[in-house]
Amino acid sequence: MSQQWVYNFGGEKAEGKKEMKNLLGGKGANLCEMTNIGLPVSAGFTLTTEVCTHYNNNNGSYPEELKGQVAAAIARSEEIMGAKYGDAKNPLLVSCRSGARVSMPGMMDTILNIGLNDETVEGLIAKSGNARFGWDSYRRLVQMYGNVVMGMKPESKHEHDPFEELIDAIKEEKGAEYDTDLSADDLKELTQRFKAKIKEQTGKEFPTDVQEQLWGSITAVFDSWNSERAIFYRRENEIDSNWGTACNICSMVFGNMGQNSGTGVAFTRDPASGANVFYGEYLIDAQGEDVVAGIRRPKHISEMGGDLPEAYEELKRIRGVLEKHYKEMQDIEFTIQDGKVWMLQTRSGKRTGFAAINIAYDFVQEGVIDEKTALNPGRIPPDDLNQLLQPIFDGADKVKAIEAGRLIASGINAGPGAAAGRIALHSDDAAEMAANGDRVILVRRETSPEDIKGMAASEGILTALGGASSHAAVVSRQMGRVCVVGCTDLDIDLKAGTVSAGGKTLNAGDFISVDGFTGEVIEGEIGTKPSEVIQVLLEGTMKAEDSDTYQRFASIMEWADKYRTLGVRTNADQPDQCENAIAFGAEGIGLCRTEHMFFGGDRIDAMREMILAKTLDAREAALAKLLPYQREDFEGIFRVMGERPVTIRLLDPPLHEFLPHTQAEQEDLAKKIGISAEAIAARVKGLHEFNPMLGHRGCRLGIVYPEITRMQARAIIEAACNIKAEGIDVHPEIMIPLVGHLTELASQEAIVRDIATEVIKEKGADLKYMVGTMIELPRACIAADEIAEVAEFFSFGTNDLTQTTLGVSRDDYGSFINNYIDQEIITRDPFQSIDTKGVGGLMEIGVKGGRSTRPDIKLGICGEHGGDPSSIHFCQKIGLNYVSCSPFRVPIARLAAAQAALYGK
Amino acid sequence: MSQQWVYNFGGEKAEGKKEMKNLLGGKGANLCEMTNIGLPVSAGFTLTTEVCTHYNNNNGSYPEELKGQVAAAIARSEEIMGAKYGDAKNPLLVSCRSGARVSMPGMMDTILNIGLNDETVEGLIAKSGNARFGWDSYRRLVQMYGNVVMGMKPESKHEHDPFEELIDAIKEEKGAEYDTDLSADDLKELTQRFKAKIKEQTGKEFPTDVQEQLWGSITAVFDSWNSERAIFYRRENEIDSNWGTACNICSMVFGNMGQNSGTGVAFTRDPASGANVFYGEYLIDAQGEDVVAGIRRPKHISEMGGDLPEAYEELKRIRGVLEKHYKEMQDIEFTIQDGKVWMLQTRSGKRTGFAAINIAYDFVQEGVIDEKTALNPGRIPPDDLNQLLQPIFDGADKVKAIEAGRLIASGINAGPGAAAGRIALHSDDAAEMAANGDRVILVRRETSPEDIKGMAASEGILTALGGASSHAAVVSRQMGRVCVVGCTDLDIDLKAGTVSAGGKTLNAGDFISVDGFTGEVIEGEIGTKPSEVIQVLLEGTMKAEDSDTYQRFASIMEWADKYRTLGVRTNADQPDQCENAIAFGAEGIGLCRTEHMFFGGDRIDAMREMILAKTLDAREAALAKLLPYQREDFEGIFRVMGERPVTIRLLDPPLHEFLPHTQAEQEDLAKKIGISAEAIAARVKGLHEFNPMLGHRGCRLGIVYPEITRMQARAIIEAACNIKAEGIDVHPEIMIPLVGHLTELASQEAIVRDIATEVIKEKGADLKYMVGTMIELPRACIAADEIAEVAEFFSFGTNDLTQTTLGVSRDDYGSFINNYIDQEIITRDPFQSIDTKGVGGLMEIGVKGGRSTRPDIKLGICGEHGGDPSSIHFCQKIGLNYVSCSPFRVPIARLAAAQAALYGK
Repeated sequence: MSQQWVYNFGGEKAEGKKEMKNLLGGKGANLCEMTNIGLPVSAGFTLTTEVCTHYNNNNGSYPEELKGQVAAAIARSEEIMGAKYGDAKNPLLVSCRSGARVSMPGMMDTILNIGLNDETVEGLIAKSGNARFGWDSYRRLVQMYGNVVMGMKPESKHEHDPFEELIDAIKEEKGAEYDTDLSADDLKELTQRFKAKIKEQTGKEFPTDVQEQLWGSITAVFDSWNSERAIFYRRENEIDSNWGTACNICSMVFGNMGQNSGTGVAFTRDPASGANVFYGEYLIDAQGEDVVAGIRRPKHISEMGGDLPEAYEELKRIRGVLEKHYKEMQDIEFTIQDGKVWMLQTRSGKRTGFAAINIAYDFVQEGVIDEKTALNPGRIPPDDLNQLLQPIFDGADKVKAIEAGRLIASGINAGPGAAAGRIALHSDDAAEMAANGDRVILVRRETSPEDIKGMAASEGILTALGGASSHAAVVSRQMGRVCVVGCTDLDIDLKAGTVSAGGKTLNAGDFISVDGFTGEVIEGEIGTKPSEVIQVLLEGTMKAEDSDTYQRFASIMEWADKYRTLGVRTNADQPDQCENAIAFGAEGIGLCRTEHMFFGGDRIDAMREMILAKTLDAREAALAKLLPYQREDFEGIFRVMGERPVTIRLLDPPLHEFLPHTQAEQEDLAKKIGISAEAIAARVKGLHEFNPMLGHRGCRLGIVYPEITRMQARAIIEAACNIKAEGIDVHPEIMIPLVGHLTELASQEAIVRDIATEVIKEKGADLKYMVGTMIELPRACIAADEIAEVAEFFSFGTNDLTQTTLGVSRDDYGSFINNYIDQEIITRDPFQSIDTKGVGGLMEIGVKGGRSTRPDIKLGICGEHGGDPSSIHFCQKIGLNYVSCSPFRVPIARLAAAQAALYGK
Repeated sequence: MSQQWVYNFGGEKAEGKKEMKNLLGGKGANLCEMTNIGLPVSAGFTLTTEVCTHYNNNNGSYPEELKGQVAAAIARSEEIMGAKYGDAKNPLLVSCRSGARVSMPGMMDTILNIGLNDETVEGLIAKSGNARFGWDSYRRLVQMYGNVVMGMKPESKHEHDPFEELIDAIKEEKGAEYDTDLSADDLKELTQRFKAKIKEQTGKEFPTDVQEQLWGSITAVFDSWNSERAIFYRRENEIDSNWGTACNICSMVFGNMGQNSGTGVAFTRDPASGANVFYGEYLIDAQGEDVVAGIRRPKHISEMGGDLPEAYEELKRIRGVLEKHYKEMQDIEFTIQDGKVWMLQTRSGKRTGFAAINIAYDFVQEGVIDEKTALNPGRIPPDDLNQLLQPIFDGADKVKAIEAGRLIASGINAGPGAAAGRIALHSDDAAEMAANGDRVILVRRETSPEDIKGMAASEGILTALGGASSHAAVVSRQMGRVCVVGCTDLDIDLKAGTVSAGGKTLNAGDFISVDGFTGEVIEGEIGTKPSEVIQVLLEGTMKAEDSDTYQRFASIMEWADKYRTLGVRTNADQPDQCENAIAFGAEGIGLCRTEHMFFGGDRIDAMREMILAKTLDAREAALAKLLPYQREDFEGIFRVMGERPVTIRLLDPPLHEFLPHTQAEQEDLAKKIGISAEAIAARVKGLHEFNPMLGHRGCRLGIVYPEITRMQARAIIEAACNIKAEGIDVHPEIMIPLVGHLTELASQEAIVRDIATEVIKEKGADLKYMVGTMIELPRACIAADEIAEVAEFFSFGTNDLTQTTLGVSRDDYGSFINNYIDQEIITRDPFQSIDTKGVGGLMEIGVKGGRSTRPDIKLGICGEHGGDPSSIHFCQKIGLNYVSCSPFRVPIARLAAAQAALYGK
């Protein structure tokens, strides 16, 4: 039997369902689903993602059976819709849309009205009795097909779209204010001009053969999978490039058949705030791309009751059906043809972090979903929590600015948050400015997929046109960028490089502030203050009960803690960092670096004295000066951490990091400690390493200079005994870094235990402590079975493990990493997210080895990856006991850990 | 039942046998074996190596049952020998000797005459009727016990042994020339002085309790296992520190009971040359340590027929019995008491590389063993082959020196070879001078285990005293050092720091030449010429049939090739290197580095132009200049290698290695290529990396600059096609370096194959080639299953794999590696011998992964380890197809490969 490459929907029953997203893409699967739950979907069919894969793997050729299956599907649609594709009298028109597993704004735009040519347009006119509608439809096809399939584009970065310029020109010729003022003849003329422009710019004719139109559109969909912007989007969103996209062919229904027709997009709840209101916009007598492209300002959906009351009621009913069926906030597209609503799409709505939390929380309160469902990573991507922790504008500062007349405009608050930065008028400029370290606000008339790079580089996005569903709004929400759209007072002059509003003219490069909560746009820079969550948790400047945001945040955290099995610790080495981490829910310290403690005041001098000492006695004398500092530091940390475990790593970095490298500094130090500047310079030179990453550091220091280990062990154990004497049951865990061989660990462990025994006896204390090691070398993973003979715990140091496993220096990989990502050699930065095959493979060996020798060995991770959600999923999968991350990542880690426990594979 | 800690030997039947070396040590096992084959062994017993392990693991305490078992064994010896330990009338005396699995000259000296004290000495005198013998025996016990158990030593490095000084003093007092001129009373007096000296230096009395003597001696044996020199010896010889030593207690027989007694050591063949002659030396009326310590010059064994004719015949008989029984050259110790021969020890004799090959070869010719047995690594350690490849003195130069009167002395040729270097009179000096890069000849009166470090650091060893079995001779032979002993004309003045002989006085630091083939010692430096093997194989200056050495070498190589299954290739990148390698038996090139080719003449300028180019066009123009050079280089290599496979690695090092780093050089280059010196400096700075080992190198270059890969692929394939057109069926294997991800390899492979297809078509050639990769990153091992989808071969690059797996930079590890070895954190340098647990573990994963995807994948190794025998064993074990090493290591690799196939586990 031949493979089924095509799935039908619309009519009574569809061939797919919502669970078939991998095969049909999100759009296709949901068109099937809506068909099956009785919602109005026009007849059509989906070419599966497997067609795309076949196309990509076979040099752009299609499966043999495809033509026949498409022809059959067209025939089915013709029968249901009562029209015939390419028929001069009663033509069926279709749209063509891409649709991958997950929505990708970087992908192809829709092409509408496929099937129109100089003949069939007459049939459409005869059938509809509306010449203006016929020609408007035709010119739209030519325009979209020209842009999407034939590659028409602005001729320079200072020009707008060539078709839009032709529209503006004919409007001026005809004295028309709006598109709708153009007559059928004007539109016919415009169609001719469009075709001529295509011929002029591309050298090719617009195709009048309807099969050529159909296949040209399908091929454009599949080609768009590998467009630059799609690749960029996939990279940003970690989407596998092998998935491919599906292609949906839908019978056309028309929103541009007059005042009883229209089109719109809507969210079943507010995607910016999460409020439980029907939220969207529509245009009367228009086709869908008018809304999404943000070119004209649409009306808010709440006004629709006046324009199209029956359709509005039907839509509200559909809103209810959808939320009840999908149990999730939906993002829908619809068209109203002659008063009848047709659903073009439904999908889970993209939302801000604020909205994600609010919607999930509300659904639970409403009894629609349970807590576990609320924690689904598709509902609350853990990084979204970041938005709740970001600073907001300082109210007083903003009031002052407004009183000073610096409020220049207001728009639609499409992406919450507070952003101030320098104005960029082009995406390329934004990217360049950001690369130079500037904060940037991208200001555009509207945005399009070409702007994605610039949007990603910006703190905030501000557009003159477009509504809450415009490209700018959708993408900003998804990226977590502050966004204000539809700020119609803005006058953007690309040629002059200025933005004018409220009687002021700002130049590109000037500072501007954008309030994504209120839609306000303010000249200059407004100061910020901590978010409500931070105010409640860390600053104590707000009461928990006064912040609704905090309450919801706290509920989500509570649910997360209920379901997660991974512990969450923090990487911190100062008491104040520890306090913050505990406020964020940290259950211990996973990594307390001791080297930071050697930099302050006198300490660095004693440290340098130690390094410069020529004899053991002199080194011990210098170390004796450091001992009280270290002990105090540890006391401070133990006191804050209480009974929570505290993992302290012994000295790790190469010694030359502590020495001054310039002549002036060396001379300065020489005076202080009575060693000649030449001797200091010689020692610095002697400590120089070709590859310090692979040099004399970690436990190698303690092996060559056991007196360092002795001092640190003494400081830790004395501090622990002292705090224990205060009645706090401390739990120090002493961690030996950069171990590759059991013998290395055993050597250091013996020193630590000797000192500990001595100190505990001196103090007469009853102290429990553990000794373990970082697993941060490939050899440590391979030899974990041996190392676990001594190690009571392992902490995977995935930063260094990534560097050594991949042979990549984090300080040096800038020269090729972008090339690697561009060429899809790797799909994500291995320092952000664990390379599960390589580094992860070694970790699995390490876990297995460690547990085989010591079944109850405690296993954690303390690399940067400990705060990365997908890495946390991996840690759950391989059975670690805890993750450890920076204090501000702790809430994210808690949520990600719960998601890994509930939804990890 | 309690454990058996003690095994008896001597008498009718022993409790052990020669196969029990692990438990009884070599000495104990062979004393049992000799007992069982009917040779004369005095009664005694062995405390097993397990006692040593128990002692080390239990803080120096013995198993409970041990005392009882020792007492029972003493009783058995008493019965057999007809005397009683500690009995004042008829005392049994014993010796105590260490004996590990393998012989360790670094271990404890023997203690003889244990059981003597002021009472029992009288019994011994009464029994033997010889007061002089009694007191001589007693003073020897005090002397040995003082040195070995009580730690007596010279008081400064300019002094001799304190006991020897007392002997010299009393001889002077008494006007005695030899020890034998001292009377019983003199020796009694000497014994008192010895005891007083012990009390003076150690503060302790010499113990007169015989049980205390026995257990003091036993404990000294077990402590000596962890002495500094034993640890050093183990490290040099890769002996596991967990094995422990056994301790042998033997009833004393006496070589110092008069002119019908004596003692000696002998080899069943000449251990320096391998000649089939009875070789050894003896002393009349002496105890064993007099021979081994080299303090007095003994007689050659061939003279014994005159002194002790019956004993000599018995010894010759025993020589035959032993060689027949052991089928191996034996190193024996014996004592003749009143005309009767007693065997004290037999073991396989240590020998030079020359002797190893000659003996193995002769045994095969004599039909004693077969070829496979001859290839046993215990018989021919592969590194011994090196000795046959080392330079020898240039005959003409030496003749000239002798004619000029520079021959200052002659001694016994105890270690063959030619060595010239600066005179060092102390071992410490030798080590220091060698560390400073000097070649050193260590010149000593005699050597002792304390000298091992200095001997290892020296090119040659020259001693005034001692014979062919002296410590200096034995250890030199084993280390492969040139050695001349017994050079009695030498007058060494430690205080003046001079060596005088032949009327000349040389100072420490002066040059001296030592001919280990002839025993000649020549003032100044003699020039060298290639060894006979090199002359035959590489230089063509000697005919094969004129060199017996070459013939034997060639036979061993022929046998090795017959039994090995691993291929042996070479690492070479010049035609002349390839010619040498083929002469040494290389079967292909395992690693041809292409970067060396970029350094000559104009090439480096074109290379620099390429690196400095700002555009693709400019880079391609510079690469076009390099193309013809590369092609010619490859043509030269292909022509020499013929049909043998040639693995060519694409450009690997970071680009900055090719640029000039000083301002002057940069200005120079600026003039040459028309780019400003500032621009060059800027590029150098831009290319700087913190960890170049982990930076932009390997395939990362070809991914960012695919034009480099294109040029190299074109040069290789064009060269291959051109040589193929000459009628040679070349086999290029193109190797992509530093691959971690399949995608990296796939990217480069696609480029290579595209170019290859193009060139092959242009040339109309019919060329087969392979594309594969270095496996030199931990990730590559872990992801080998994926990488093998594209790679047709893997070559393990164990240099870099060791650096990344262990996180150790070979350029930087000098600061801690010695510490690591001293502390026994690691037992051998992982860059010399594969770290089988870590690096080897990853290699095994790589082999498994590669073969799982591509069962016929070709697997090799091209790191330095490819020429290291123990690493070759590992490669055999994990199933590689070939090893590759530098041309001069090829013979060693061939032999090691055969040994791995025959004897590998």
